[in-house]
Amino acid sequence: MPSQLLAPLFGSPAMEAVWSDEAAVVAMVAFETALAAAQAEAGIVPPTAAAAIAATDPAALDVAALAEAAGVAGNTAIPLVKMLTALVTTADPDAAKWVHYGATSQDAMDTGLVLQLREAFKVIEADLARAMAAAATLARAHRDTPMAGRTWLQQALPITFGLKMAGTLDALMRHRDRLAEARPRILSLQFGGAAGTLASLGDKGPEVARLLAGRLNLSLPDTPWHGQRDRILEAASLMAGLVATSAKAARDVALMMQTEIGEVLEPAAPGRGGSSTMPHKRNPALSATILGAAGLAPQLLATIAAGGAGEHERFAGGWQSEWLALPELARLTGGVVAKLAELLEGLEVKPERMAANLAATRGLLMAEAVQMALAPDLGRLVAHDRIEAACRTAVAEGRDLIDVLAEDPQITAHAGRDRLAALLDPAHYLGAAGTFVDRVLARYAGIGRD
Amino acid sequence: MPSQLLAPLFGSPAMEAVWSDEAAVVAMVAFETALAAAQAEAGIVPPTAAAAIAATDPAALDVAALAEAAGVAGNTAIPLVKMLTALVTTADPDAAKWVHYGATSQDAMDTGLVLQLREAFKVIEADLARAMAAAATLARAHRDTPMAGRTWLQQALPITFGLKMAGTLDALMRHRDRLAEARPRILSLQFGGAAGTLASLGDKGPEVARLLAGRLNLSLPDTPWHGQRDRILEAASLMAGLVATSAKAARDVALMMQTEIGEVLEPAAPGRGGSSTMPHKRNPALSATILGAAGLAPQLLATIAAGGAGEHERFAGGWQSEWLALPELARLTGGVVAKLAELLEGLEVKPERMAANLAATRGLLMAEAVQMALAPDLGRLVAHDRIEAACRTAVAEGRDLIDVLAEDPQITAHAGRDRLAALLDPAHYLGAAGTFVDRVLARYAGIGRD
Amino acid sequence: MPSQLLAPLFGSPAMEAVWSDEAAVVAMVAFETALAAAQAEAGIVPPTAAAAIAATDPAALDVAALAEAAGVAGNTAIPLVKMLTALVTTADPDAAKWVHYGATSQDAMDTGLVLQLREAFKVIEADLARAMAAAATLARAHRDTPMAGRTWLQQALPITFGLKMAGTLDALMRHRDRLAEARPRILSLQFGGAAGTLASLGDKGPEVARLLAGRLNLSLPDTPWHGQRDRILEAASLMAGLVATSAKAARDVALMMQTEIGEVLEPAAPGRGGSSTMPHKRNPALSATILGAAGLAPQLLATIAAGGAGEHERFAGGWQSEWLALPELARLTGGVVAKLAELLEGLEVKPERMAANLAATRGLLMAEAVQMALAPDLGRLVAHDRIEAACRTAVAEGRDLIDVLAEDPQITAHAGRDRLAALLDPAHYLGAAGTFVDRVLARYAGIGRD
Amino acid sequence: MPSQLLAPLFGSPAMEAVWSDEAAVVAMVAFETALAAAQAEAGIVPPTAAAAIAATDPAALDVAALAEAAGVAGNTAIPLVKMLTALVTTADPDAAKWVHYGATSQDAMDTGLVLQLREAFKVIEADLARAMAAAATLARAHRDTPMAGRTWLQQALPITFGLKMAGTLDALMRHRDRLAEARPRILSLQFGGAAGTLASLGDKGPEVARLLAGRLNLSLPDTPWHGQRDRILEAASLMAGLVATSAKAARDVALMMQTEIGEVLEPAAPGRGGSSTMPHKRNPALSATILGAAGLAPQLLATIAAGGAGEHERFAGGWQSEWLALPELARLTGGVVAKLAELLEGLEVKPERMAANLAATRGLLMAEAVQMALAPDLGRLVAHDRIEAACRTAVAEGRDLIDVLAEDPQITAHAGRDRLAALLDPAHYLGAAGTFVDRVLARYAGIGRD
Repeated sequence: MPSQLLAPLFGSPAMEAVWSDEAAVVAMVAFETALAAAQAEAGIVPPTAAAAIAATDPAALDVAALAEAAGVAGNTAIPLVKMLTALVTTADPDAAKWVHYGATSQDAMDTGLVLQLREAFKVIEADLARAMAAAATLARAHRDTPMAGRTWLQQALPITFGLKMAGTLDALMRHRDRLAEARPRILSLQFGGAAGTLASLGDKGPEVARLLAGRLNLSLPDTPWHGQRDRILEAASLMAGLVATSAKAARDVALMMQTEIGEVLEPAAPGRGGSSTMPHKRNPALSATILGAAGLAPQLLATIAAGGAGEHERFAGGWQSEWLALPELARLTGGVVAKLAELLEGLEVKPERMAANLAATRGLLMAEAVQMALAPDLGRLVAHDRIEAACRTAVAEGRDLIDVLAEDPQITAHAGRDRLAALLDPAHYLGAAGTFVDRVLARYAGIGRD
Repeated sequence: MPSQLLAPLFGSPAMEAVWSDEAAVVAMVAFETALAAAQAEAGIVPPTAAAAIAATDPAALDVAALAEAAGVAGNTAIPLVKMLTALVTTADPDAAKWVHYGATSQDAMDTGLVLQLREAFKVIEADLARAMAAAATLARAHRDTPMAGRTWLQQALPITFGLKMAGTLDALMRHRDRLAEARPRILSLQFGGAAGTLASLGDKGPEVARLLAGRLNLSLPDTPWHGQRDRILEAASLMAGLVATSAKAARDVALMMQTEIGEVLEPAAPGRGGSSTMPHKRNPALSATILGAAGLAPQLLATIAAGGAGEHERFAGGWQSEWLALPELARLTGGVVAKLAELLEGLEVKPERMAANLAATRGLLMAEAVQMALAPDLGRLVAHDRIEAACRTAVAEGRDLIDVLAEDPQITAHAGRDRLAALLDPAHYLGAAGTFVDRVLARYAGIGRD
Repeated sequence: MPSQLLAPLFGSPAMEAVWSDEAAVVAMVAFETALAAAQAEAGIVPPTAAAAIAATDPAALDVAALAEAAGVAGNTAIPLVKMLTALVTTADPDAAKWVHYGATSQDAMDTGLVLQLREAFKVIEADLARAMAAAATLARAHRDTPMAGRTWLQQALPITFGLKMAGTLDALMRHRDRLAEARPRILSLQFGGAAGTLASLGDKGPEVARLLAGRLNLSLPDTPWHGQRDRILEAASLMAGLVATSAKAARDVALMMQTEIGEVLEPAAPGRGGSSTMPHKRNPALSATILGAAGLAPQLLATIAAGGAGEHERFAGGWQSEWLALPELARLTGGVVAKLAELLEGLEVKPERMAANLAATRGLLMAEAVQMALAPDLGRLVAHDRIEAACRTAVAEGRDLIDVLAEDPQITAHAGRDRLAALLDPAHYLGAAGTFVDRVLARYAGIGRD
Repeated sequence: MPSQLLAPLFGSPAMEAVWSDEAAVVAMVAFETALAAAQAEAGIVPPTAAAAIAATDPAALDVAALAEAAGVAGNTAIPLVKMLTALVTTADPDAAKWVHYGATSQDAMDTGLVLQLREAFKVIEADLARAMAAAATLARAHRDTPMAGRTWLQQALPITFGLKMAGTLDALMRHRDRLAEARPRILSLQFGGAAGTLASLGDKGPEVARLLAGRLNLSLPDTPWHGQRDRILEAASLMAGLVATSAKAARDVALMMQTEIGEVLEPAAPGRGGSSTMPHKRNPALSATILGAAGLAPQLLATIAAGGAGEHERFAGGWQSEWLALPELARLTGGVVAKLAELLEGLEVKPERMAANLAATRGLLMAEAVQMALAPDLGRLVAHDRIEAACRTAVAEGRDLIDVLAEDPQITAHAGRDRLAALLDPAHYLGAAGTFVDRVLARYAGIGRD
């Protein structure tokens, strides 16, 4: 996000807070504070020094000055440690030398990033829960609401709006499962010192790492991971997957909102999506914003994937790309999932327009249903031939299929107009749609009891 | 891969076989055959018809004619079903009408793709196992082989070559875990009929789907997933992750092979990497090939992620992109993992060059170690000041640090030349490197017993 | 393109021929042959040797064996030179030592690539000319055919179908201009020898390069460009731009073909886009294929852009990526532009459906037109208020706007039903659409006289 | 750029100013002001109203409130027009109704973007001029400074550092040419009204557009281009190209700065790149930042390319992606080019280390040179065999090649130790390097006289 100007449009307040400059500082300071405490516990750092370090207030660090210094130093941790040390010195000169003891810049930055990711996951999960609940509500309410199923942007056969929503819910639940599986892998301490051996801590490195992970409530990896970025890529993949699923839902909404389709409307809000000069318009503003963000997420994922092939124990390029790409991806994901929740919670559904669109082909959409139903009586081949002929006639003469069928004595011998009308009713040709919805809702019901 | 010309370079024979045109045909035919069998079991299709369909030999389908017809039809399943029907008709005219009964093109293509993915995963896992074993062997053999740890492409502190290899192994094992978690989600039947309701099967759709999944040994999803591509994206993410980790290893090899570094050599092979006109050269040909493939994988992943935001029940664009992108990504991944195994299995390691490079800074690299060791005797501040002064002198006068230190009476009062030499020995300042290697190897040892 | 199976779908025969394995061999052999001839002219190589080299038939090189050897050697030029040398040896043993004299693998591969690009540009330009002609024909024929202009997928105001086509033509002409500007930059000789100095040719390097560029009819660069890939990126950008413009046109076609919209139809072809079970369907198969290819092109462009940041005088990774990405991008571009031409040449336009859709809002779409027209008589504010009120009434009561307006005495005092009907006619509110179309067509007319 | 924290690191002050929120507001207000003035000139808007609109101060618009409103409205222009109208109303109620008259949101946003791009190009060109000048200075100064040419990260043959710099200069000059060609195409007015016909201006649309383009000093397109984004893609391609070339230069610097290579040093600055704990380190902080930015640029380019395939007359997704991607790409490009200039202007070159590295193979690097020189005396085949044998011996016994050669009587018969030493001197085997440098510098000299 290039600016404040677009942050309210593409972001969500909760996620913006996670990735604010202040939050980045707080996360790195949390690492430094916990490090000193862990080292005090391990008998390396005097307890008074650890207490002095713990007493520093991240808010006392001047973010603008930090940014300026980072522009020269090449990363944010070097000036942060300097500024933190200066603060500690004021309070307790003897404690100053224990700030960042045995650690390296990347330890503070990577672990700080992981702490921010933990908060980001919380935000995502809260909005994901809202989106799932809204999708479930729509799936339940419209379990039996017929609409046109569309393939290649053409009407194919009837489905239900509930089935469409169940598909979204189904995918969102899978993303939830993936996040749960990946969480302990991703939320992992990075602590290796200058080159990944913790050499400056003598033989106490592993013990300090264990205590530090415990204090930060992060998993303890078998080895520092500064040079292996698969955890970061996994986090990015999860987020890009959520964006893709959300964008698919938004795409369908934008298409269903077309003037000529009109099957759903985005939730109304004062000032949103309307047009003062064009009273008939209701722009899919939420959906377009989701789709706009979705144009960046795959590429940010690609940046992170490509950045993983870096040099030796700390990268010169790929790591720096991450500093920009991962927070941007997380912020976009936060905005997208929050907007998806808002979209689904307030979606206006128009079953009557769905029904009207189902009738747009004047019965042709239901030809297969008629054919399947009459095959036992007419014989499969005759059924096929008569129906096909009727379809051709209906198209050529611009008539309703039922009227053409009702003129064919071979057909009327087995099905009168009433039965034909019933066969041509999309609500009678929905197959297992209801079963599929029920299954997805049953799995969703199980989540609440996890 | 644009051509046969580059297939042996970027691919692996086993993975190329999985994605051959013939294999794609076999996979779609397997879907059609199992479908008929499942429908026979469900009492829909006559057993003789199912038997006739099962008797068709995929090899009898002319791939070139199929390709030509697909170019017109817009996908491969439509002409495949036609050609298959023609074959069945020859054998048993009555059976022909049951080919592809109740299914849609995407059912055959998506499920066929999943069947190919299952084979692809097997190939990947076999080569991944080789790569892990080779990384483990190197990590074990070089647990205590010192080399320069390098950050920002600068020597930082000593590490061991074993630690570097353990980092690779650690990441590869995580990929293995991810693949195991994702496998049942990805290897899932797609079967929905024209619009995802299985309407043409009346009330037997779910039963046929259950039987079909059982016959194909795929998981049965709660609802058809033609419109939700998160499974495909998950497969792509797994593969791109493997490529990124492999490329990181290849990057390090290419850097370590630099003429001026010379710490490892790619495995020799007749005709590989040498230069007839330049006898001193040994090109990192395997590594460069891996890195070349790694330049495409993130983008193919992005294509697949972006393609997921498609239209309604079958996409007009994003799905078509998958047809190209997923097999290409899988083929590149197959090549990359096979080459990583080959690279690590045959890697020539030069501990003496690692030692020589560790000495390149004439002791400066070890200044921290000396300072830490003398701090208890000299006091922290004095130790810091004396060592720093010695470093400055060594740089300015182009001398070995030990010689400068040995002239400082404050230092020699506590450490004679022998002790200084020991302190300056990188092998004595490796921190927890060995512990980290041991942990990773212990986890690896556990895998064999899974 | 992963396979032969999809080549007819996504490719074009002419472009596939340019990038066949055989064509790659021919292009590299053309470099080697012209090199020997240029060196003969410069007095380095005996004319008989140059003649012997020129006499080799590229078709005699076994592509399968070459591919296999390239898989080991790490690139295609090393084995090609070996195989070519063997061929020449058979004919004239003395000539063999002059094959590839003073050149390096990358010289043959990069210049070969440029020669293929030249052919690719010819293919693109031919199909681009067809697409431009077809767009011009449609723009001319439908200069005054009203249809709904749609913003955010909502009907906004009337435009003409001709204006839409003129927009496509306008962009295609710009791509043509860009290609013309870039061509001499891109079609440039690469010849630098082992490290870019042509040292093995003594002081004759520049002279040989000049003669060689002349023989190949390529521009002569000031310095070899093996390490600077901006020309390749420029070619890729041009192609990705063409794909994006084509995909925009395809997107609109796919949307206009929706069952509920029905304003255009893709050209019919036996076996294309139809559905045997769903007679009402006409899938946008061409458009979806274009859009599918367009899902890969941006990413292939990104791969090439990223690959440009390579190492020293020959890259270990980024160059290898190009080998796959550039031909793939060119092949997709070839397919896309050819399909765009086919799409536009055979597009069926349905002005009556455009008119019907314009009426879908029952006059609301034209409210602005009525308001603008009545402002002089009613006063701007009154006009705005009365029209807005009428719109609200029309929506609330589900009536035609004209009927509501005709009940408002303030309005009928100035405009009777006939004038209202005229004001509500989209054909009367097309602004400068015709002028814009005329301008674009005038520029197009000028091209033929270039 | 996610935040202020990283802006000084990845951006340049001049480019950050171009893309500030305030600058975006100024650019859109400039459009609105010029529009009113043009309409006054065309007799549509009262001159007093145009004057009142022109009198508004963009600084009076509250950016935070605008951002908040944009978050609801879905774009920035809708609230901007509202706020601007409110401002004008305060000053002159009659003028208020002429604000944004006949225009649409996208007109203000796209033309505003173009105005920002014009400023961005100025910033880029200024830094590009600096970078070119610095590269030229280095190329001239080191025209004859030998260093190892490296292919596949292996020493190949000698080149000069001047040749490397000339390659960079050569590519930068091409980017300059491309920018000059593309500028009039890109810097083009967008003005089309609600759907691109300017219908609300009656027959005065084209005249207003002409006057408006004139006032803004933009080119006048034949037709509005809201739906055709090739100009935006062209701008993005230019910027991504500059980033790629800069990143290539940065890659080489980072590699040449390796501890073991040490051939160049980034310019020193207080607080940059040093390490307090590791006095021997000098991190390639500028280069890594450039490479970090270069990890995002290709993907942002891909986002823009993909976004071009949007829907109808205004996109729902692709356009929104541009709002984020284009400014981000421009900001990264601004930072990258400024940093490249800084890097090259202050680069410390170490010819003695280049010479030392050339000697690293103990003469093997020069084997080709000896062979070429002795061929006339010894015969080509004998020369080849003797030299090859000597190389093998030198490698096997770890000796200097000259010592081995000096023991071979067949060789010493033609070349004594002095001549051998001369032949093994890299400075004598530089081919056309100087000529190539001179050519590039001559072209550069011509630029100043453009």
